Amino acid sequence: MPNVSPSACCGVLRFATVFVVTVASALPATAQTPAPAKQRARELGLPIGGTAGPLDAITDVAGVEVGHTTLISGSGKLVVGKGPIRTGVTVIHPRGKSNSDPVFGAWFTLNGNGEMTGTTWLQESGILEGPIAITNTHSVGVVRDAILQWQVGKPGMQPWGLPVVAETYDGGLNDINGFHVRPEHVASALDGAKGGAVLEGAVGGGTGMVCHGFKGGIGTASRRLPAEQGGYTVGVLVQCNYGARRDLRIAGVPVGEEIQDLQPCIANRDAPQAGPRRPCDAPATNRDDDDGAGSIIVVVATDAPLLPHQLKRVATRVSLGVGRMGGWGQNPSGDIFVAFSTANAGAGNASDTVAVRMLANGRISPLFTATAQATEEAIVNAMLAAETMTGANDLRIFALPADRLPAIMKKYGR
Amino acid sequence: MPNVSPSACCGVLRFATVFVVTVASALPATAQTPAPAKQRARELGLPIGGTAGPLDAITDVAGVEVGHTTLISGSGKLVVGKGPIRTGVTVIHPRGKSNSDPVFGAWFTLNGNGEMTGTTWLQESGILEGPIAITNTHSVGVVRDAILQWQVGKPGMQPWGLPVVAETYDGGLNDINGFHVRPEHVASALDGAKGGAVLEGAVGGGTGMVCHGFKGGIGTASRRLPAEQGGYTVGVLVQCNYGARRDLRIAGVPVGEEIQDLQPCIANRDAPQAGPRRPCDAPATNRDDDDGAGSIIVVVATDAPLLPHQLKRVATRVSLGVGRMGGWGQNPSGDIFVAFSTANAGAGNASDTVAVRMLANGRISPLFTATAQATEEAIVNAMLAAETMTGANDLRIFALPADRLPAIMKKYGR
Amino acid sequence: MPNVSPSACCGVLRFATVFVVTVASALPATAQTPAPAKQRARELGLPIGGTAGPLDAITDVAGVEVGHTTLISGSGKLVVGKGPIRTGVTVIHPRGKSNSDPVFGAWFTLNGNGEMTGTTWLQESGILEGPIAITNTHSVGVVRDAILQWQVGKPGMQPWGLPVVAETYDGGLNDINGFHVRPEHVASALDGAKGGAVLEGAVGGGTGMVCHGFKGGIGTASRRLPAEQGGYTVGVLVQCNYGARRDLRIAGVPVGEEIQDLQPCIANRDAPQAGPRRPCDAPATNRDDDDGAGSIIVVVATDAPLLPHQLKRVATRVSLGVGRMGGWGQNPSGDIFVAFSTANAGAGNASDTVAVRMLANGRISPLFTATAQATEEAIVNAMLAAETMTGANDLRIFALPADRLPAIMKKYGR
Amino acid sequence: MPNVSPSACCGVLRFATVFVVTVASALPATAQTPAPAKQRARELGLPIGGTAGPLDAITDVAGVEVGHTTLISGSGKLVVGKGPIRTGVTVIHPRGKSNSDPVFGAWFTLNGNGEMTGTTWLQESGILEGPIAITNTHSVGVVRDAILQWQVGKPGMQPWGLPVVAETYDGGLNDINGFHVRPEHVASALDGAKGGAVLEGAVGGGTGMVCHGFKGGIGTASRRLPAEQGGYTVGVLVQCNYGARRDLRIAGVPVGEEIQDLQPCIANRDAPQAGPRRPCDAPATNRDDDDGAGSIIVVVATDAPLLPHQLKRVATRVSLGVGRMGGWGQNPSGDIFVAFSTANAGAGNASDTVAVRMLANGRISPLFTATAQATEEAIVNAMLAAETMTGANDLRIFALPADRLPAIMKKYGR
Repeated sequence: MPNVSPSACCGVLRFATVFVVTVASALPATAQTPAPAKQRARELGLPIGGTAGPLDAITDVAGVEVGHTTLISGSGKLVVGKGPIRTGVTVIHPRGKSNSDPVFGAWFTLNGNGEMTGTTWLQESGILEGPIAITNTHSVGVVRDAILQWQVGKPGMQPWGLPVVAETYDGGLNDINGFHVRPEHVASALDGAKGGAVLEGAVGGGTGMVCHGFKGGIGTASRRLPAEQGGYTVGVLVQCNYGARRDLRIAGVPVGEEIQDLQPCIANRDAPQAGPRRPCDAPATNRDDDDGAGSIIVVVATDAPLLPHQLKRVATRVSLGVGRMGGWGQNPSGDIFVAFSTANAGAGNASDTVAVRMLANGRISPLFTATAQATEEAIVNAMLAAETMTGANDLRIFALPADRLPAIMKKYGR
Repeated sequence: MPNVSPSACCGVLRFATVFVVTVASALPATAQTPAPAKQRARELGLPIGGTAGPLDAITDVAGVEVGHTTLISGSGKLVVGKGPIRTGVTVIHPRGKSNSDPVFGAWFTLNGNGEMTGTTWLQESGILEGPIAITNTHSVGVVRDAILQWQVGKPGMQPWGLPVVAETYDGGLNDINGFHVRPEHVASALDGAKGGAVLEGAVGGGTGMVCHGFKGGIGTASRRLPAEQGGYTVGVLVQCNYGARRDLRIAGVPVGEEIQDLQPCIANRDAPQAGPRRPCDAPATNRDDDDGAGSIIVVVATDAPLLPHQLKRVATRVSLGVGRMGGWGQNPSGDIFVAFSTANAGAGNASDTVAVRMLANGRISPLFTATAQATEEAIVNAMLAAETMTGANDLRIFALPADRLPAIMKKYGR
Repeated sequence: MPNVSPSACCGVLRFATVFVVTVASALPATAQTPAPAKQRARELGLPIGGTAGPLDAITDVAGVEVGHTTLISGSGKLVVGKGPIRTGVTVIHPRGKSNSDPVFGAWFTLNGNGEMTGTTWLQESGILEGPIAITNTHSVGVVRDAILQWQVGKPGMQPWGLPVVAETYDGGLNDINGFHVRPEHVASALDGAKGGAVLEGAVGGGTGMVCHGFKGGIGTASRRLPAEQGGYTVGVLVQCNYGARRDLRIAGVPVGEEIQDLQPCIANRDAPQAGPRRPCDAPATNRDDDDGAGSIIVVVATDAPLLPHQLKRVATRVSLGVGRMGGWGQNPSGDIFVAFSTANAGAGNASDTVAVRMLANGRISPLFTATAQATEEAIVNAMLAAETMTGANDLRIFALPADRLPAIMKKYGR
Repeated sequence: MPNVSPSACCGVLRFATVFVVTVASALPATAQTPAPAKQRARELGLPIGGTAGPLDAITDVAGVEVGHTTLISGSGKLVVGKGPIRTGVTVIHPRGKSNSDPVFGAWFTLNGNGEMTGTTWLQESGILEGPIAITNTHSVGVVRDAILQWQVGKPGMQPWGLPVVAETYDGGLNDINGFHVRPEHVASALDGAKGGAVLEGAVGGGTGMVCHGFKGGIGTASRRLPAEQGGYTVGVLVQCNYGARRDLRIAGVPVGEEIQDLQPCIANRDAPQAGPRRPCDAPATNRDDDDGAGSIIVVVATDAPLLPHQLKRVATRVSLGVGRMGGWGQNPSGDIFVAFSTANAGAGNASDTVAVRMLANGRISPLFTATAQATEEAIVNAMLAAETMTGANDLRIFALPADRLPAIMKKYGR
């Protein structure tokens, strides 16, 4: 299957068919970049704090695998059931796709205007029994059942489960009411997941997402603690679809106030499709900045030996990273976070008493800081990786202009 | 479409096609009873306490509508994807199927080994924005997305949502891995829902369920407070699939200890299908009594003007009813409860400040008692209504023998 | 200090001074019974289910120690600050008074109209760092600070803490606004705590409590699982001050309906003190039965190796025992439960990673049943141990007449 | 009683007696400032965002009253029970000290290593029935019982309650194990509370607190929404005792990195008292920066008509303000937040159904932002108001040097 650069979706191209792009996280360098390589936060030297792991990705936590299926097709006027399609699904296997050994896990919600299935059992049992998936709001159900179907078909996997599937809303760029995600797309992401570098931006579940008024989507980052703090790794993956432009801060710098142009607009003046939006070639107004509706799903992985109640504490700290970026957990936002630990292999499947290792509470604080910092950086990475996209009804969402960041950072002493 | 009595599924009949039975709750008396009418708990005079409403059903709360789609087909050896099929979906519209005005709501879980989608937003917002559906474990996703699809297609309904869908597991009697519930079955239940008497037993989502080792499924009951306590109604609907036989108590009487025969068994001695189960014509053993795996979903409706945090208190009291019946919230059980109030019409859709009525906390206690009592009676009603069913791999689950209850109750002074 | 039988408080005796009765749980048989020994639930053969440990007490969990300070003084008209005094404090040391090694713990509330301090840290950390104390509502503060003072004075104890102190309201029998519990009473209970048999009834924090309209107070019970379920012990201690008479059930038998006499009344006809109450020698009315205001604090101990999130599950099951007795978690009731595990010594004090043992979730269900059953029996034991008491303003609360139980149980087939 | 400037505690003065300073919030300008007036955040033009109310204080919410009792005495070597004393208690009356009408309320904890009593009933009932008090860790009990005593003595007040009392730890500067807060200090703060400007810094419960390595304590701020967002006021009061120096950010500017001197130190070289601390005149080391142990209690008041479940959402957003300042909710920190609404007078005392007003969820987001912003500003105000203090064992905590802020802000483009 050909690898389609996310940038292909933009501009005036017209697609005749749905491109189903299943992308494993580990891409050969050649496949990833026909376009000039985009820089990530640490390459830009953004001073978010802490030290990243080798990949600066959730896959720095050994065993974690990520897979995406990206669905991009059509352009112009929205016809429900036809498109344009800008959506997909992203999956995270805590111990890899071939290892069904459960992990300890927990979740937290800053603002619950969203869905994450499977959380009731996660909270009760302290155990995450399968992959995590992220998709659009209207496809949570199909993804959930498809994970069960996939598990039922695997020898050795539990033929039962309560899958963890979360969502953010892509009804701006995507024909969300067309229900375009299908079971085979889910299976493809599950089977195609890999370790290594994670493709970011408008891919997988993040394909049609908008973050602080810029093109958002999937982003990832990690932090590695120094040896004297245990040397543990915290990896974060976000599906970023929240935030007002004016509130965007990067490393404390009010980037959103500095970039008030490049607001969402309608690319086709002759056929403005979506009511109140400004045509892209009309003068900007002070009403262009959205209110920050949207959502953010955050997955935190760590190899630190944390028990379920400790992972809940970690998941709670994601809020701090979101807040530092300029998120307020606003009413329309589904800000839902899940954390798991890859330590304690075998504990979740034990049949009687089992030995597990626990990190003392007195040693947990650096993991809190790492979680907040990796969340911040993953959000920035999502925006940096995504390219400008034009979708349903010619809605255009611009990429964060990375080339303007150095001057802005300098203006604010960074 | 012909109305099929649930009892038709049992015995030696072989079905060639899937019977899709969409049953509104209000059935003409003639349609409901080719078989002799089965008695409900209050007709048997079981002293559970409190006073029921006219229907002794969740539909005693004005506006509430219930719809079922029942899927029954095939018999004998399980072939995944073919059957036998013993499943379905049940829906509850808080204000009726034509009224999308939200209600205040809340939820609670006694043991969370189950799924109820939509709870994150329910908890955050205090508002239940659409119908509640109950189905089998592996069909939660399809039902969830189908509700969205149904809403999207309705003029005036919010083209967006986070549907509340719960489940219990019917993988004993039903080909659960065949994923037989389809979107049209959901739409049929949603459109066919009505007020009035509610069909109970092996119908809708409850079709393939087992309760205290007897055939379970859907049951309902209500309590009406005296005028001096406000005259409010509490209605309960359960999908009952939990409990060990030995623990079953009715009105404090140890019925489960008294009926140790009629345990689940395999109806076809020549082709025993499901491993360790005893053939029905073999002598009983002391290992026949299951451990009480399973689940119970409980929906509580009231017209009392309760705010969301008060409805959470009501939902919590469902546990007390389950406990009095002999449920312990055991590890494999998904005991998840949702409560809503039909008071305060218009509040959930208000665009600014809105006047609502609140019952003083000092007046709430009778609603707690009513909730626990109606839960107890709804569970008993589910068992009384269900008839013996034979399903996948010839597994046979017997009906609670109502004719033996009077003698048992008398033995225990009732 | 002389040991004063709780029964001494009743009748026409007038006390000139406060009797401070610090009673360790392990009393020599001679000291415990000048009066004829009262029978406990298992001696009466009440069929609550399960198998008790040797003491049928929370102290069947090795290491647990219990201490009481009982304050009884005065009679007749209430004079705030003078008395009559009917109150005290009960303490539980999870690993004994000389062992400050923390235990894993968790808590749950059925109805939160009460106080249990220290729960925020208990929830966050999963660790219970000191003793648990139970007293009257207005003495929570003094008991809390006194525990800190006691710890500060002990070499090797953490000179800091967030003590867990709970309460129920004894403002009927006791001069609660006199604030009679003092730091030295707390220290005395802490220092006097012992293993072995636990004194029950109107002692310690339970001195002035009322349960289902009978004299309540402290009760305890235990359950021991069979070896094939791990052989674990669950011990429960309650301070019982909740419930309406009419709702009281024992082993499913409606004892409260059967004993409608012996309701609270005013013992002194010539000087009726407390407004609406009936004089004891006036004819009974149907308004004598209280509404079940009050509270119940329940402490669950186990030696099963449960993690904090699993102990939360155990604490939740206490509700089921309360519900089976006839409690509904009514609005005025503070029904707050705490659970801890004495397994995993050293884990709470670890300075880095530490090995702990965890019971698989799949093995936890028998502990749930044991918790509910031991709760039921502990409540019954509290009522069986307490004797009729006359307190402030001549309020008289009658003991549950154990001699009438056999006939009632027989009437209901038990 | 003379008003003592908090700065009097510092330097070489030796106190012979305890100064009990009960300060109402509304001070005549003359009383407040023998010393030159200190500037607050908005006077310094720190760009935290949003618009403050007239007082930039919690008392901008009509009816709210604040009272402090400040206890300062002694210096030099710590002698438990003697001093030095640097502690106190702060109280907030939601509707003023003469109005016992309850308010709707809720609470949230970011990291629960602390105490806030009364939260169980607050969560269950949705109602805050009395004042909120904040003190040191070891005085929570005495303050709690003293509030009950104060209420019992007031005609018309409920002679019962579950007071809300929180704490942070002042065991560095204060003889915390001396238990110096007494009931009369609590009564004095309760009776002396007033509206108007609120005294900030080292006063009341905040007397001995440390915030990001600077002298902390009590701070307050407010935000007023524009008319089109309802014109509501959000007021915040903090007792600030958390944070590492290196993590301190103000309006996104890394102030803590810029001020690495002025770390806690021991003022008396000849008698260094507290082990590992550096004498103030010794060279600084890179180990001077504390790890951010400590706590922060935050009280949020609003006049917006929010129901209890909505106030929970508001309380949760306090985390975002703490995170933006550089707090991570670290393990030793008790970060506990309570929110209440002064709207809906009479609702909490209603005896049956009652009309209340509710703000639509769709209008709540600006209150979230306001809460986070007011939290940030209140923390800054606490540090700006406090002056350098020397306490137990000659520990010296420096004030944030406000005169250095303009240059730092300018360096970072602010």
